[in-house]
Amino acid sequence: MNELAAAALSVSLAAATPVESVTKARTVSAEDVRSVAPALERYTQEALVGDVWKRPGLSARDRSLVTVAALIARNQTVGMPHYFRLALDNGVTPAELSETITHMAFYTGWPNAMGAVGVARDIFAERGIGPDQLPKAAPELMPIEPVGEAARATSVHQNVGPVSEGLVKYTGELLFHDLWLRPDLAPRDRSLITVTALIANGQVAQITFHLNRAMDNGLTQPQMSEVLAQVAFYAGWPNAMSAVPVVKDVFEKRSASK
Amino acid sequence: MNELAAAALSVSLAAATPVESVTKARTVSAEDVRSVAPALERYTQEALVGDVWKRPGLSARDRSLVTVAALIARNQTVGMPHYFRLALDNGVTPAELSETITHMAFYTGWPNAMGAVGVARDIFAERGIGPDQLPKAAPELMPIEPVGEAARATSVHQNVGPVSEGLVKYTGELLFHDLWLRPDLAPRDRSLITVTALIANGQVAQITFHLNRAMDNGLTQPQMSEVLAQVAFYAGWPNAMSAVPVVKDVFEKRSASK
Amino acid sequence: MNELAAAALSVSLAAATPVESVTKARTVSAEDVRSVAPALERYTQEALVGDVWKRPGLSARDRSLVTVAALIARNQTVGMPHYFRLALDNGVTPAELSETITHMAFYTGWPNAMGAVGVARDIFAERGIGPDQLPKAAPELMPIEPVGEAARATSVHQNVGPVSEGLVKYTGELLFHDLWLRPDLAPRDRSLITVTALIANGQVAQITFHLNRAMDNGLTQPQMSEVLAQVAFYAGWPNAMSAVPVVKDVFEKRSASK
Repeated sequence: MNELAAAALSVSLAAATPVESVTKARTVSAEDVRSVAPALERYTQEALVGDVWKRPGLSARDRSLVTVAALIARNQTVGMPHYFRLALDNGVTPAELSETITHMAFYTGWPNAMGAVGVARDIFAERGIGPDQLPKAAPELMPIEPVGEAARATSVHQNVGPVSEGLVKYTGELLFHDLWLRPDLAPRDRSLITVTALIANGQVAQITFHLNRAMDNGLTQPQMSEVLAQVAFYAGWPNAMSAVPVVKDVFEKRSASK
Repeated sequence: MNELAAAALSVSLAAATPVESVTKARTVSAEDVRSVAPALERYTQEALVGDVWKRPGLSARDRSLVTVAALIARNQTVGMPHYFRLALDNGVTPAELSETITHMAFYTGWPNAMGAVGVARDIFAERGIGPDQLPKAAPELMPIEPVGEAARATSVHQNVGPVSEGLVKYTGELLFHDLWLRPDLAPRDRSLITVTALIANGQVAQITFHLNRAMDNGLTQPQMSEVLAQVAFYAGWPNAMSAVPVVKDVFEKRSASK
Repeated sequence: MNELAAAALSVSLAAATPVESVTKARTVSAEDVRSVAPALERYTQEALVGDVWKRPGLSARDRSLVTVAALIARNQTVGMPHYFRLALDNGVTPAELSETITHMAFYTGWPNAMGAVGVARDIFAERGIGPDQLPKAAPELMPIEPVGEAARATSVHQNVGPVSEGLVKYTGELLFHDLWLRPDLAPRDRSLITVTALIANGQVAQITFHLNRAMDNGLTQPQMSEVLAQVAFYAGWPNAMSAVPVVKDVFEKRSASK
């Protein structure tokens, strides 16, 4: 039984496997949902698939990025195969999905990114996505925006410096002078998935900085409004509702300062 | 090996499987716990199983609802088979468990509910629970309570309206004019699992509204006190302790207003 | 197929299995990471493995305790086999790992501890770690520190008493008069994993009490600074950043009171 066990285990954690098996295993079918909660299947078809995903104000591509970010942020690997494939079908490039996983390692933790790697590996294999379609490990970085970065660095130095020099060091060197400057995911998209992750995990205290950065990077207020509705379904109403006062405050302060 | 792989995978993610295999696979035995942490097994038997679950003030049926809600809220599928079965044994009806899963989709996120569906599907199959015992997808709804709903709608319109019209729309149409009015789970029980989910996920900012609603729906103060103790074991002490000041404030304001 | 299903399932959820299979199944290889996100593999090797883990100020043994606590706190079982083995290799004793799992049951929830049991069981079996190397279920407890305990008991009685007598009872009897006095994990180490769990789960409101207790128990300010950097990688930057103001406040108040 050892050989069987080894096979079963390596498979059950999504080592390279045929498409059908991954598909079969990692999705709960509409029939399954009907057999347990007929109302949930109705809400899924009528409200979520039939309405939310089709709303104007946020593209299906952006809704896919938001949904993928919410799943990685909450380490929900079972739903990933479906939504990773949907993201690729909706126009998220393999390079962008790759960068999303790397970005999420910093904003939701290394283990969350590793869980996403296990799923993406199979989907890239099933779709014949090879190294030529992936970002370089160390590409030429985009230029840094000096004014905003100076303000950020000063703030982190003053607030975090007295508490953890290591945290200050890595925040500067790895995140803002490397990760955020990588060219294969637009700053606006990095901000979109970062804000999504913060809302999906209830990290309200970090939203103000990153939502302002997101809007500086081009995320519009109508898009952000739709992000809240999308995240409500995938991370639960309480996380969306807890984000509302902070988002409202950012919207108001930015319109006042115009 | 593809056939084996497919079988292993579809099984390991709880596609229809025999009772024995699900039971065996998804529980950590007392012997396992003793072999790793003898003290944990002692606390489990003496304190949790032998004392907490038998405390007066909250019925075993309600403790099961609370525990199931905490597991779904935290997406802990491994513990679900045991506690879903225990809930049914303790008097939670299949229709109530079905509605609990649907309710949790909105309050803890769609993927959490889908994880619960995968487990409930097997248990319903093993117990021969068919469509006749499940709620209708679109039953006749209970009448809405106009005064409280008007206050809620006004508050959401004022606070959420400027931030996300979509969130306002779905909160009204799907949650308070549909989900909460479904007849197969009592409003008091919907409130019980909602408050449990908020505490289990540390969503303190949402407790005041839902605890007041819960007590309006018939949840008593002694029952709520026991919910906190039950959740402490299943979601950890810090989540229970972080909820205490808010629960205390609600208790005090309600007794003062009498 | 029942036999196969049973085998696959019991294996895929880590019932006793051969070393190789667990190892193979539960780790995402460096090659896997490169095939999806080359940059993530670079950050892992250069920054995390090559730099963070080698920083002075916190020993590899303590970093292992912190990482194990973060994984259990977030219920990330897939990463546990690697980091449980690394912890044992870095000098965490089997008894200390056993006590860590028991301690986490109270501070992160019973299901989290049970998930860790399923992994530790296999690793203890693979390394021939038997009952003789584990803590007693009910050993002679260390003496309680009367002054601090009196202050804690009074505070809990006043703040939690009016809300949940059950929570007051178990907090005293099980946590502070039993768990914390168990001799097989030093109070300083219990504090280290407790503070880590609070940061990893964003439970900021509970940090002040436990960080002061940790420093009373011997955790130094430089060590705590490194804990924040370590947790940032394993639980995500936002959780570390949200903890910073509270940690800063504790540091300042303690140095002022000297």
